[in-house]
Amino acid sequence: MERITVTLGERSYPITIASGLFEEPASFLPLKAGDQAMLVTNETLAPIYLERVKHALEQTGVRVDQVILPDGEQYKTLSVMEQVFTALLQKPHGRDTTLIALGGGVIGDLTGFAAACYQRGVRFIQVPTTLLSQVDSSVGGKTAVNHPLGKNMIGAFYQPASVVVDIDCLKTLPARELASGLAEVIKYGIILDGEFFVWLEEHLDELLALDNKAMAYCIRRCCELKAEVVAADEKEQGVRALLNLGHTYGHAIEAEMGYGNWLHGEAVAAGMMMAAETARRLGQFSEADVARVRTLIARAGLPVTGPKSMTPESYLPHMMRDKKVLAGELRLVLPTAIGQSEVRSGVAHEIVLAAIADCRG
Amino acid sequence: MERITVTLGERSYPITIASGLFEEPASFLPLKAGDQAMLVTNETLAPIYLERVKHALEQTGVRVDQVILPDGEQYKTLSVMEQVFTALLQKPHGRDTTLIALGGGVIGDLTGFAAACYQRGVRFIQVPTTLLSQVDSSVGGKTAVNHPLGKNMIGAFYQPASVVVDIDCLKTLPARELASGLAEVIKYGIILDGEFFVWLEEHLDELLALDNKAMAYCIRRCCELKAEVVAADEKEQGVRALLNLGHTYGHAIEAEMGYGNWLHGEAVAAGMMMAAETARRLGQFSEADVARVRTLIARAGLPVTGPKSMTPESYLPHMMRDKKVLAGELRLVLPTAIGQSEVRSGVAHEIVLAAIADCRG
Ligand SMILES: NC(=O)c1ccc[n+]([C@@H]2O[C@H](COP(=O)([O-])OP(=O)(O)OC[C@H]3O[C@@H](n4cnc5c(N)ncnc54)[C@H](O)[C@@H]3O)[C@@H](O)[C@H]2O)c1
Ligand SMILES: NC(=O)c1ccc[n+]([C@@H]2O[C@H](COP(=O)([O-])OP(=O)(O)OC[C@H]3O[C@@H](n4cnc5c(N)ncnc54)[C@H](O)[C@@H]3O)[C@@H](O)[C@H]2O)c1
Ligand SMILES: [Zn+2]
Ligand SMILES: [Zn+2]
Repeated sequence: MERITVTLGERSYPITIASGLFEEPASFLPLKAGDQAMLVTNETLAPIYLERVKHALEQTGVRVDQVILPDGEQYKTLSVMEQVFTALLQKPHGRDTTLIALGGGVIGDLTGFAAACYQRGVRFIQVPTTLLSQVDSSVGGKTAVNHPLGKNMIGAFYQPASVVVDIDCLKTLPARELASGLAEVIKYGIILDGEFFVWLEEHLDELLALDNKAMAYCIRRCCELKAEVVAADEKEQGVRALLNLGHTYGHAIEAEMGYGNWLHGEAVAAGMMMAAETARRLGQFSEADVARVRTLIARAGLPVTGPKSMTPESYLPHMMRDKKVLAGELRLVLPTAIGQSEVRSGVAHEIVLAAIADCRG
Repeated sequence: MERITVTLGERSYPITIASGLFEEPASFLPLKAGDQAMLVTNETLAPIYLERVKHALEQTGVRVDQVILPDGEQYKTLSVMEQVFTALLQKPHGRDTTLIALGGGVIGDLTGFAAACYQRGVRFIQVPTTLLSQVDSSVGGKTAVNHPLGKNMIGAFYQPASVVVDIDCLKTLPARELASGLAEVIKYGIILDGEFFVWLEEHLDELLALDNKAMAYCIRRCCELKAEVVAADEKEQGVRALLNLGHTYGHAIEAEMGYGNWLHGEAVAAGMMMAAETARRLGQFSEADVARVRTLIARAGLPVTGPKSMTPESYLPHMMRDKKVLAGELRLVLPTAIGQSEVRSGVAHEIVLAAIADCRG
């Protein structure tokens, strides 16, 4: 079992990572006998995991209700979130309830935001079931739902009381979703930790084969890296922006292709290649390092080029709508070495366009 | 001009109270030339005040957009709030925008909550236009929308950057709404400040006649009292609960009669009488003090009895659904003297029923 702490003063919380946690009543601390909780999950996960998690909670003496939402990014909306409130108010659940998010990033983001808002804030526990949510979305306290005019535009910074990662979940996760999570894993290596990047080069096959030991270490290291960044910059004023490597380009792909056709991690993977090429064209990242990034991304089963149908010009309007745009100026996260990166403003649009063209599918 | 500060560390903010503030470009600090802002108001207020406020802002060099919502408590919902997000995203407004709530508590609560959520939090300014919102809802950072199953069930603690109270607004406010605000004014006297209660006994007629000097002092004193309580207990763990005097009973009236038929302050006024009678029956509040409370409430044009159609028994289920209920036990705010009050648990239901019967219309 791996356990780390996200350090945020009074709002610090543990992340527990192991195989078999769903069979273990003690996993869901700080819930205790007599507590009331609402499990939020979706129609795909409920038949596989709901009863197991409920059973463990009921063994602890927790009174558990449940709400099962439709599955998909298109349901990460205010109106679907209202179903959670309806379920809570129908029972009813008071201010002392705990929401449990059992699912990937969609369920985690929506449930976390619901917890932030219900009666102005109740406790919540993240139980991430995709690799992406285990290494990324469940750590850091960003919660949100989408608006028809923009992703994650409505939300809150709200920290969970704990994060419970049962790596056995990954056995039922579709391969494409696993790869999508690996994109974020590789991202941590590129932006923050060159040694971890080397470790990934050496252990990627074990991760793809869901080797327990390698996977637990990998998730722990990613959570540690993200937790450090979040502790240093909870509200995303500075260093936290580095976590967006590849995302500004990737969001353009997601927006243009329609959310869901390209998975988030796939778009980020292609976006990281575009960022690497941008950095290379600026003379701050070597040809050899671009090749190492490309090789690792490809080995993970992820795209190293953008969609064939998108011209470089079609990226820019989306990129200019990014939250990181300040005073009309594009700000990009760019690597300066494997394991090191920076936020750069004022990169000439021609260089960005050329780098995107380098990665045209 | 009266000015006070709500002291909350980095999130401290000023409340400015005067006549003629809407004609004064400097009123809307911290907005400055070049800033972007979104005015949120309703269909009743827009024709009277929108152009004046816009003009003052535009004179300062602020770029102002507007969104005009339907008027009424029934529109304080997540889906109406989504219209604010749509307006923000259509322009678009970035993270550096400022929302301005121009209206009563409905607009203030909804706009404040929208500001808390938009891109995970943008600045907002309260411009309260009802007496109730000037003395109560605009101070303290509670924001919320309603759910069909409960009022204010979805929200956030979120502080404004400033509160701008132009008392001239009250001239266009319907008399019933003015009286409703006076219920909250009287509440402060009962729970926290016996001298202010005496001042109200002496100056109520001036307030009803909208005398500028008396009104500015009255609003300032209420804001001061609320600000002190909020500073001591931002998240409503302790002393802040006292502000709910009369509200547990009052919510039952509002819920049973249908929101909007009894105004909030009217229900609170009857509820304060019920709290006073409960305290009297517990031997902690004198007959003479009950009479002083009744006289002041009646002089303000407010009800001293509940609706004829409601039996005492019909209050309890609503009261048990109150947010202050802990572990199934009713907790009531009760006066112990004029100017002093406490939260009490475990009051026998028979006493509560008898006190409600004392106030049957
Ligand atoms: N809050 C943050 O900091 C943050 C960071 C990154 C991404 N996100 C958000 O996360 C979301 C994407 O998360 P995601 O990639 O986990 O997508 P997801 O939640 O949609 O899950 C992907 C798919 O896998 C299914 N699934 C999940 N776990 C499974 C399992 N164990 N077995 C079988 N099927 C399983 C889901 O039902 C879904 O169909 C996006 O909405 C994104 O905005 C948030
Ligand atoms: N956040 C808090 O701490 C807090 C505290 C108390 C009440 N509230 C909330 O406040 C709301 C009630 O607020 P309210 O009493 O101000 O009601 P309101 O906002 O509905 O305003 C009452 C009516 O007066 C109209 N009006 C407002 N100002 C006017 C003016 N100057 N001239 C003419 N008409 C005017 C409005 O359009 C509306 O029709 C409730 O939703 C309640 O939950 C919140
Ligand atoms: Zn991502
Ligand atoms: Zn009130």
